[in-house]
Amino acid sequence: MPERTARGSEHRVRLGLVGAGRIGSFHAETIARRLPTADLAVVADPLADAARTLAGRLDAAWTAEPAEVFGADDVDGVVIAAPARAHADFVVVAAEAGKPVFCEKPMALSLPDADRAIAAAAVAGVPLQVGFQRRFAADFRAAREAIDAGSIGTPQLLRPITRDPGLADPGGVPPWTIFRETLIHDFDVLLWLNPGSPPVSVFAMADALVAPDFREGGLLDTAAAMIRFDNGAIANAEASFSAAYGYDVRAEVFGSGGMVTAGSHEVSAMRLYTSAGITQQTVRANTALFLDAYTAELAHFVECVRGDTTPSVTGADARAALAIALAAMESVDTGTAVTIEEIEARN
Amino acid sequence: MPERTARGSEHRVRLGLVGAGRIGSFHAETIARRLPTADLAVVADPLADAARTLAGRLDAAWTAEPAEVFGADDVDGVVIAAPARAHADFVVVAAEAGKPVFCEKPMALSLPDADRAIAAAAVAGVPLQVGFQRRFAADFRAAREAIDAGSIGTPQLLRPITRDPGLADPGGVPPWTIFRETLIHDFDVLLWLNPGSPPVSVFAMADALVAPDFREGGLLDTAAAMIRFDNGAIANAEASFSAAYGYDVRAEVFGSGGMVTAGSHEVSAMRLYTSAGITQQTVRANTALFLDAYTAELAHFVECVRGDTTPSVTGADARAALAIALAAMESVDTGTAVTIEEIEARN
Amino acid sequence: MPERTARGSEHRVRLGLVGAGRIGSFHAETIARRLPTADLAVVADPLADAARTLAGRLDAAWTAEPAEVFGADDVDGVVIAAPARAHADFVVVAAEAGKPVFCEKPMALSLPDADRAIAAAAVAGVPLQVGFQRRFAADFRAAREAIDAGSIGTPQLLRPITRDPGLADPGGVPPWTIFRETLIHDFDVLLWLNPGSPPVSVFAMADALVAPDFREGGLLDTAAAMIRFDNGAIANAEASFSAAYGYDVRAEVFGSGGMVTAGSHEVSAMRLYTSAGITQQTVRANTALFLDAYTAELAHFVECVRGDTTPSVTGADARAALAIALAAMESVDTGTAVTIEEIEARN
Amino acid sequence: MPERTARGSEHRVRLGLVGAGRIGSFHAETIARRLPTADLAVVADPLADAARTLAGRLDAAWTAEPAEVFGADDVDGVVIAAPARAHADFVVVAAEAGKPVFCEKPMALSLPDADRAIAAAAVAGVPLQVGFQRRFAADFRAAREAIDAGSIGTPQLLRPITRDPGLADPGGVPPWTIFRETLIHDFDVLLWLNPGSPPVSVFAMADALVAPDFREGGLLDTAAAMIRFDNGAIANAEASFSAAYGYDVRAEVFGSGGMVTAGSHEVSAMRLYTSAGITQQTVRANTALFLDAYTAELAHFVECVRGDTTPSVTGADARAALAIALAAMESVDTGTAVTIEEIEARN
Repeated sequence: MPERTARGSEHRVRLGLVGAGRIGSFHAETIARRLPTADLAVVADPLADAARTLAGRLDAAWTAEPAEVFGADDVDGVVIAAPARAHADFVVVAAEAGKPVFCEKPMALSLPDADRAIAAAAVAGVPLQVGFQRRFAADFRAAREAIDAGSIGTPQLLRPITRDPGLADPGGVPPWTIFRETLIHDFDVLLWLNPGSPPVSVFAMADALVAPDFREGGLLDTAAAMIRFDNGAIANAEASFSAAYGYDVRAEVFGSGGMVTAGSHEVSAMRLYTSAGITQQTVRANTALFLDAYTAELAHFVECVRGDTTPSVTGADARAALAIALAAMESVDTGTAVTIEEIEARN
Repeated sequence: MPERTARGSEHRVRLGLVGAGRIGSFHAETIARRLPTADLAVVADPLADAARTLAGRLDAAWTAEPAEVFGADDVDGVVIAAPARAHADFVVVAAEAGKPVFCEKPMALSLPDADRAIAAAAVAGVPLQVGFQRRFAADFRAAREAIDAGSIGTPQLLRPITRDPGLADPGGVPPWTIFRETLIHDFDVLLWLNPGSPPVSVFAMADALVAPDFREGGLLDTAAAMIRFDNGAIANAEASFSAAYGYDVRAEVFGSGGMVTAGSHEVSAMRLYTSAGITQQTVRANTALFLDAYTAELAHFVECVRGDTTPSVTGADARAALAIALAAMESVDTGTAVTIEEIEARN
Repeated sequence: MPERTARGSEHRVRLGLVGAGRIGSFHAETIARRLPTADLAVVADPLADAARTLAGRLDAAWTAEPAEVFGADDVDGVVIAAPARAHADFVVVAAEAGKPVFCEKPMALSLPDADRAIAAAAVAGVPLQVGFQRRFAADFRAAREAIDAGSIGTPQLLRPITRDPGLADPGGVPPWTIFRETLIHDFDVLLWLNPGSPPVSVFAMADALVAPDFREGGLLDTAAAMIRFDNGAIANAEASFSAAYGYDVRAEVFGSGGMVTAGSHEVSAMRLYTSAGITQQTVRANTALFLDAYTAELAHFVECVRGDTTPSVTGADARAALAIALAAMESVDTGTAVTIEEIEARN
Repeated sequence: MPERTARGSEHRVRLGLVGAGRIGSFHAETIARRLPTADLAVVADPLADAARTLAGRLDAAWTAEPAEVFGADDVDGVVIAAPARAHADFVVVAAEAGKPVFCEKPMALSLPDADRAIAAAAVAGVPLQVGFQRRFAADFRAAREAIDAGSIGTPQLLRPITRDPGLADPGGVPPWTIFRETLIHDFDVLLWLNPGSPPVSVFAMADALVAPDFREGGLLDTAAAMIRFDNGAIANAEASFSAAYGYDVRAEVFGSGGMVTAGSHEVSAMRLYTSAGITQQTVRANTALFLDAYTAELAHFVECVRGDTTPSVTGADARAALAIALAAMESVDTGTAVTIEEIEARN
């Protein structure tokens, strides 16, 4: 049989993962099992057991010290899936160590932190990609392409929503999570689907309707934000932490020449017709709803690590979405509309 | 052949119509052609030609004097489809003449006018029905039934929208039309689909994106309103005067136990599959989209005239939706959230 | 008040109904309540009680003698909704009496009977319309328009189906009902949606799967027929008498340039989202599924009676669909494909 | 950094591919890029250039001699994607060499060939899996699960279809391809979705409607088959080689208690609303429509090679679907219904 070239290790990218929680574990599986050109080199988590178990299952090394990942010679890039409050610092450390970084959203919880992270990556000259995976979903991508093609004219009314099926542990959810970690996806979608037009002002309402007992602790589980953009477009973003029917993420962009919608809840194209009517089964996990998108965003990161391209979702994108979230939070606190200008001035 | 009872004239209701414009003409056709137990007795419009032409086409009498309709002995009930600013006065006159009244929305443009109209009907003891026809649409009705049955739990997030395909004559549209005549439908839908919970406060944005040249004249063609209700529910209502793809009216009610949606844009269940993809044709006129609902609301009015039932959509409903519209208008003017309490206090 | 012309009786068409069963009663209501320009003059049924009750409810005269309807001076046209075996004779009598005739499908059970009926109407010069109401349904009409417009090219594969939700009284169903009374609709749809191309041969299978106990009595409740047309197109028509999920009537026409589909099962555009998934409610009665189509076909008949137009669904159409049904029945008996030519030669 | 276990080569399965044509190349990419636990070891094709190019692109060895793949020590299993006429022989040779075999459909073109292939695998004790990938599609799987759960009762009417968007080279298509290579998928779907009930008889029609110029050469591009099963169920399978609107594969199973449908044509959940209506984009390649299913079937084969499970789609399944195809072909030739018993007796 003719000789074959050994599958060259120079072709494979070795990724280190920081954070072995729910989304970290999922990213680990994506790297190990769904990306043909990447290897999961090492998993770090201060919870040593979590790191060890995950690494063991996927044939990777492990450590309880994130610093070891950033400093490892045999790691070509890092994926940060730690708790949100640690993101910015980890991005800085990774960048300073010269590692390309993929950081889960939100990249930072304040604009100064966002600026630090962005600057660190810029100074180090490493790619910095942020985890807004909806941009990689086929239907959201097709929506953007239709907008770019001029099929709907100028966006005028935008409606992104996120509805999560469950709130497993209301006690463990930090107060502003619905804006900083959930609606931040929708804010990014808005910026991405109304390209070139910066947000101007934000008015928001939020409440604890799902878990009212946790209201005192600051938990907000239901929220809506109205955003005005520079081109006059008005957006209504909306989120809930308790959709009984499954994971529901959608976007609708209405423009001067038409409308485009994205988002599907269905598990498959199967339909069941019985005396109860016609039934579709719904998706119950974001990792199921966005399986292909999560894989595609990490495949994109692998290409960035290799130097084949640069991140399509950047630190600047993370910062822009964060500014909207901060304005929305302040609007909830004050009951008034808040401008992005005010947020910038104050931060 | 056995004798048959003559089709008793005592069974038929004779209706007088005030207003021979677009919606008036449509109601006239419904009365004359789609309601088996009603006759169109007379049409009134100060534009004598309009009245004469419509009446001639439908075999009715006509007059240029609305007062003649209210005073006519052979008119059992009146349908008011005049310009909005005349509605309240006409309701008062009709009621004082002892005629049951169906009034197109908005029943009034101010709360005192609404109160006058309601009081006049109450004093006269005549039925007063208002033209929120969405309540008679099969899908909206089924949505309400699902809510009443507890299928979605307590409403938490509501999203009604109205998108009109065209703005034929931007110059002829009074400044606040989008709130007082268009979104007032959506506000009524909100009150109806979140039953028992009064609105608390309203924040709104509006702009002239479709016809910017008419902005100076006060025309607003794109608007959104966020409304908080007493039970914590948050609503986002939205309207545009220029949907390129057709007439688009929807409502979505998300609750603690599920979600219900209503609204369809399609002309029929026909689908066309070609190299361009799969295409559905869309509806382009509200009278086509709501043909059955418009017929059902007038059939209901006929029953009210006969005394078989009382109006399911009342003057009080019109007033409640108007209060939200007024709050939204003030919010646009001031840039702040406006409470219903303030609106009530000021009116 | 200005004088108005009395609503002229010369404008209204007086219809006589023969047959006060399920579909007859429904047609009676359509005539009396949904057709503005028609009156139900008289109802005839040998079951005097049925005739009396229906007529009483709708303010019509009644008789137990169909002949009285055909001979009545104050009847402008007759609607025949008697049992199928009586249709052809009634058409002949009505035509001979000079009455325009609307006849429910099947117009005849044999080709000679069909020919007699057609000839009688031709000789008398009266309009003869047959009750293939699908042709008046918005989606089926739109499908035909798309075909006429060339949007799908030449039809190559056609799939009409009928599924009835229930078989209330299997013992009362004549043996070949599924072909002669149910699939005959689908055969007509085929002829109408593959215009200009006659059927050539038919192969069919049928069985008693729903009510096997009635197999001995000849009841067939599940059937399929494959038909080849002169232009090469192949059709698969299919019917069942027991669809657990509701009334299901569809058609799909696949052509050289695309595909068009018609048919919907949904009660309304309402969708319910719960932990059980997304649910649509389904229609359970043909009179609900085709309410508008049944009204439109009788409105068309009224126009024919008035002489404003001629029937768009003729006795010749009924005969052509019957020939396919007869070929399918013979195919079930013989287990072989049967040509339309053989059917014609034998009849 | 803690030591990590090297990613064990004992965990990876080395596959050899025979056939570097369209579907072979696609399988090669699946193995190399979408299966984390498999490697593409070698590609064989008598067209040396095709083998070399494909292997080069995917870092595999290559050869023009299929026999070298079957005999290679470093190949753990083989994937046969050669022309259909060579399938059975290759299965035999592979099995005799002790290699687990995945064979594209059709596994054989005659029953004796199918029997030889099945026997060879049985004697050698190697797994033999056949490429009916629809069984691995999420919607088809969900349909089967619903049937197994009793949600639709006993199947009574089944409707599988395949419509291919294009016929690139009509001259190169062997005469019976539409039955042996296309509808064989649908026949397998029937056997799988009406489990436990063998087919009894088949009636089929076929024609050259897409490319009539090739009719003389025996090309059939449009076909339909009606199949009766032992439990009384009747199926209508249908195929075309030229769907203008894209790749269209569906199945509908109607049963005594309901109905289940599978199949979708859409590229994504994106919808575009314009003045032309509402548009969905359609899929144009089977490899796009069934990407996940093709990956899942090879993942299943990898598990079979490892001995973790046994094939869920067997040589016996291939033989059963082939028997229906042969009956359909004979039916087209004779114009009569053909029993499976006759086909068995004659082969």
